Amino acid sequence: MPSNEFDLIAQYFAPLSAQEPGARNLKDDAAVLDIKPGHQIVTTMDTVISGVHFLPSDPPESIAAKVMGVNLSDLASMGADPYVYTLSAALPAGIEAAWLKRFAETLSKIQKKYNFTLVGGDTVVTPGPLALTINALGTVPTEQSLSRIGAEVGDVIFVSGRIGDGALGLQVLQNNLTVSDKNERQRFIDKYQSPIPRLRLGKELRGIATSAIDISDGLLQDLSHICKVSNVGATIELSDIPVSSVVREKKDLIELAISGGDDYELLFTVSAELANNISEIGLKSNVNCSIIGQVTKGNDIIIVKDGIVQETIAKRGYNHFNT
Amino acid sequence: MPSNEFDLIAQYFAPLSAQEPGARNLKDDAAVLDIKPGHQIVTTMDTVISGVHFLPSDPPESIAAKVMGVNLSDLASMGADPYVYTLSAALPAGIEAAWLKRFAETLSKIQKKYNFTLVGGDTVVTPGPLALTINALGTVPTEQSLSRIGAEVGDVIFVSGRIGDGALGLQVLQNNLTVSDKNERQRFIDKYQSPIPRLRLGKELRGIATSAIDISDGLLQDLSHICKVSNVGATIELSDIPVSSVVREKKDLIELAISGGDDYELLFTVSAELANNISEIGLKSNVNCSIIGQVTKGNDIIIVKDGIVQETIAKRGYNHFNT
Repeated sequence: MPSNEFDLIAQYFAPLSAQEPGARNLKDDAAVLDIKPGHQIVTTMDTVISGVHFLPSDPPESIAAKVMGVNLSDLASMGADPYVYTLSAALPAGIEAAWLKRFAETLSKIQKKYNFTLVGGDTVVTPGPLALTINALGTVPTEQSLSRIGAEVGDVIFVSGRIGDGALGLQVLQNNLTVSDKNERQRFIDKYQSPIPRLRLGKELRGIATSAIDISDGLLQDLSHICKVSNVGATIELSDIPVSSVVREKKDLIELAISGGDDYELLFTVSAELANNISEIGLKSNVNCSIIGQVTKGNDIIIVKDGIVQETIAKRGYNHFNT
Repeated sequence: MPSNEFDLIAQYFAPLSAQEPGARNLKDDAAVLDIKPGHQIVTTMDTVISGVHFLPSDPPESIAAKVMGVNLSDLASMGADPYVYTLSAALPAGIEAAWLKRFAETLSKIQKKYNFTLVGGDTVVTPGPLALTINALGTVPTEQSLSRIGAEVGDVIFVSGRIGDGALGLQVLQNNLTVSDKNERQRFIDKYQSPIPRLRLGKELRGIATSAIDISDGLLQDLSHICKVSNVGATIELSDIPVSSVVREKKDLIELAISGGDDYELLFTVSAELANNISEIGLKSNVNCSIIGQVTKGNDIIIVKDGIVQETIAKRGYNHFNT
C-alpha cells in the first residue's frame, strides 16, 4: 500500500475523476458541479462492510461491483441518470497495492458502463473491517423522479429479472446450498457479488410507474415498504414470481427467494391501463418484467399460490438489526 | 437501541429531514433536490472513526459535532453555503437509545445553526468501531467557489482563529499535557471535539481569496497542499502565527501547533492589493484573521522566526497513513 494517503489518492482514485473537470483531479477540498437546467439532483448513500454486506473472502472486483451496484440501484429505483459519486474507503492497515489496483480497475469499468464519475471522498485507515460508503448523485428531469410513494389500488405489481438469485448466491458461497448446474451456480454467485443496477428500466419507467423500489431487503419487505408509504395493501401470486428452476424444484427455497434480499431488481407498480406497455419497456431495457400481483385496499400483503391464500402478513423480510 | 433499522431511522433521523420536502421524510430510496438557477453544487465527504478521528471516550455530542464540523469546514473552504447532507452511521451492536438520542439532538442543533438538512443515508450494524460518514452538499454562485489552486507569487497568506488549539486539546484529553488555566484547557478540548466551520468567512472570501483550504492535516501540511497545486512556494513567520499563550510559553509546543491538525481554521491567500480588506471581513465573519507569510516562487516552504530562517521544507505534517 502507498505510504501516504495523498499518493494513494493520486495513484488509484484521481484517474477515476478525469472525466469531470469539477472534480479538480481530487486535489481540492470538494468538487464543484453544474446541474443541467430543468433537472433535479438525486442523492443516495449506501455503506457495505466486510462480513456484513459481503464476504471477507470476496475478491476486490466483486466488492467494487457491490458498493457501486447497490448505490446505482438506488438511482435506478428513482428513475435517475447516474452523474457523479464520492467514495469513503475505510481500509484495514495491511491492505495491499494489488488489491487497490484491482478495486480501482473495477470502479473504472463500472464508471464507463454507466457514465458515472468519481469526484471526491475520503481514504482512512480503520482498525475495523474494510468498509466502503458511496454517495451517488444522479439527475432526473424536474418532477419526473420515481418514488416508493404513489401505488394505487388496482395497480399491477411488476418485478424485473429473477427473484432470489442473490440470496441463493450467498447460500452457495457459504456452502449451505449445492447447485449442480455450474452455469446456474455461477449466475447466483454473480448476482450476489455483482448486482446489476436496472438503470435503463428505471429511466423508461418515468411517467409510467406509480411507485418503484429496488429490492435490497427482500421482495416481501420491499413490497411492504411500498405498501406502507403508499397506504395500500397487495396480493401476490407465488407461482408468478420469476424464480430459478432450483427454487421451483425445492419448495423450501421459495421462502428464501422472496425474503432473502440482494436481488437489486426493481419492484414497481403500474396502472392497469398502462400495464401493457411494460413488456416493450422490458425489451428496451434488456430485462424481462413479470406481473406478480395487484395493489389492494388495506395494509396487508396477501400471498396466494395458484389462487389459494397461503399467508397474510403485515410486515416481513430481512432486518439488518436482527442478524 | 430500536429493534430494527426502520424504527431507528423514523425515530432519530427522519425528524432531522423535516425542513426539506425532497428528503421525502427518509422514506424513499433517495432524496430529490432542486438547485437554485445560477448556482453550482459543491460535494464533499469525510469519515470519522472511533479511536482514529475521535476518542472512544468522547460523548455523542462531540462526535456529532466532529463529523458535522469536518464536513462543513470543507464547504467553508470552498466558499459554499451548506445545503443538505447524507449520513452513514455504522453502529456497534450494543449502542444505546440514549446515545442515539443525544447524537441526533446535536445534529439537529448544528443543522439549525448552519441551515443544513439531513436528506438520506444508511444505518448499519458494524462489528468494528463506530464510524460515521457524511456527504455534504453545498451551493455556490456559478464560478465563485474557492479552491486550493490559485495562489500567486506575492500573495499574502492568512489564517483564521488560533492555530494548534485542536492538537493541544487532544494532548490534554490523552493526559499528555497539563494546562492550568481551566478556561483555556476547556477551549482546547472544545476545539478538538467540536470544530467550528468558518462558513461565514469562506463566503466572504468569494472573489477575494486566490486560494483557500481548511486546516485539517496541520498548518504546514495544508499550506504545502496549496503550494503544490498552485505551483508556488511560501515563507511563513513563526512569530506571526496566532497561537495560545500556552504555546508561546513552551517552545516545544510550536511544532505541535503547526503540524498537529484538527484546527479547522481557514488558510487562504489574498493579493497584496486586497489584503487590507481582510480585517473587515474577519470582523463581519466573527473571527480574527492574521497574516502569517507570503507566497513565493519555487516549491519550498521557508519557516522564519523573527526574520531568521529556521527551516526549509518541501512537504510536512500529519500523515494519516503513518500513525
